[in-house]
Amino acid sequence: MLNSSRRSGRRSGPTGTRAAILRSARRLFAGRGFDGTSLRAVAADAGVDPALVVHFYGSKEELFAASLELPIDPGDIERVLHGPRDQIGRRVAAFYLERVFGERAATVASLLRSSVTNPKAAAMLRRTIETSAVALIARLLPAREGELRAELVASHMIGLFLTRRIVKVEPLASESDERLLEILAPTLQRYLTGPLPRKAKRR
Amino acid sequence: MLNSSRRSGRRSGPTGTRAAILRSARRLFAGRGFDGTSLRAVAADAGVDPALVVHFYGSKEELFAASLELPIDPGDIERVLHGPRDQIGRRVAAFYLERVFGERAATVASLLRSSVTNPKAAAMLRRTIETSAVALIARLLPAREGELRAELVASHMIGLFLTRRIVKVEPLASESDERLLEILAPTLQRYLTGPLPRKAKRR
Repeated sequence: MLNSSRRSGRRSGPTGTRAAILRSARRLFAGRGFDGTSLRAVAADAGVDPALVVHFYGSKEELFAASLELPIDPGDIERVLHGPRDQIGRRVAAFYLERVFGERAATVASLLRSSVTNPKAAAMLRRTIETSAVALIARLLPAREGELRAELVASHMIGLFLTRRIVKVEPLASESDERLLEILAPTLQRYLTGPLPRKAKRR
Repeated sequence: MLNSSRRSGRRSGPTGTRAAILRSARRLFAGRGFDGTSLRAVAADAGVDPALVVHFYGSKEELFAASLELPIDPGDIERVLHGPRDQIGRRVAAFYLERVFGERAATVASLLRSSVTNPKAAAMLRRTIETSAVALIARLLPAREGELRAELVASHMIGLFLTRRIVKVEPLASESDERLLEILAPTLQRYLTGPLPRKAKRR
């Protein structure tokens, strides 16, 4: 949009440059994590001057936050919300396998690779889990201890992503999403709607 | 023994120095991961010359491997092996919560923090899962697809460690091991001894 009339940007003007920086940031953060990625490396990968990265995004923290594909689309949430309650485990499993680990694989890898060594990234992943994953489930589950239930699901799913996509343990890494869906659905169903053991009384 | 008669070491001789280096390595690798820890930092933490770390352990890779508390004690494995088969999920959950995440928390944190950014550490974690966790379960489970079953368990447990101990998601992080044991046992039981959906036929 009128970018061609401005001469400050490279590629197709500021919008194209911003997008190129963001693509490079997404790729590098996903592969090396926050601590392993410098603004200079992002700039080099995008073929721009480092000062331009700072100009557009401010700090590395802000660039990292911008590179994540969050939050989850409300439409996705609605699809998980609807349908019979006794199939919710299956729908949540499909949601993770397709929407989160499929379409947002780079974001999940970025957050995971960054959060294990960087406290700020860990805080961001914690907020993501506590607000998006947990808020989603808590809304659709008028159940006792909705947060704990949602976090049991999230912890299982994050571990699955880690072992399959990052550590690549076989044969799990090569297992199909379709079969995993069948295996996971009853577990998530129990965590989300099944009985939970009583809390120990505080003395 | 007889170390005091040798004058090459500091502290209480070479054995004491080796132990001090290992303690520092364990602590730093667990907190910062492999890529975030230098031999120099380990030497400084242990109060020794960096050359001495190289003398005793060779490379950072070798120091890292030595700092891990592996493998699992065969006695622990025997305890998990014995007992009724319909309680195996519970025993495996207790094994992870107590032996692995309790006593070996530093080792698990080291492997996790390192493997997300370092391919060699990822290979080490993969080998650890595939040989110790999986070999253990495969031995005790004369079940079809023992490796996949053991890896489903391992992926769930690793995700739990990550969300509770590293990302510290609440309320999950503050939940008691005792209550988690009750929650996890039926899931692990199903993964280890329950039916698995059929594999899709290859075309």
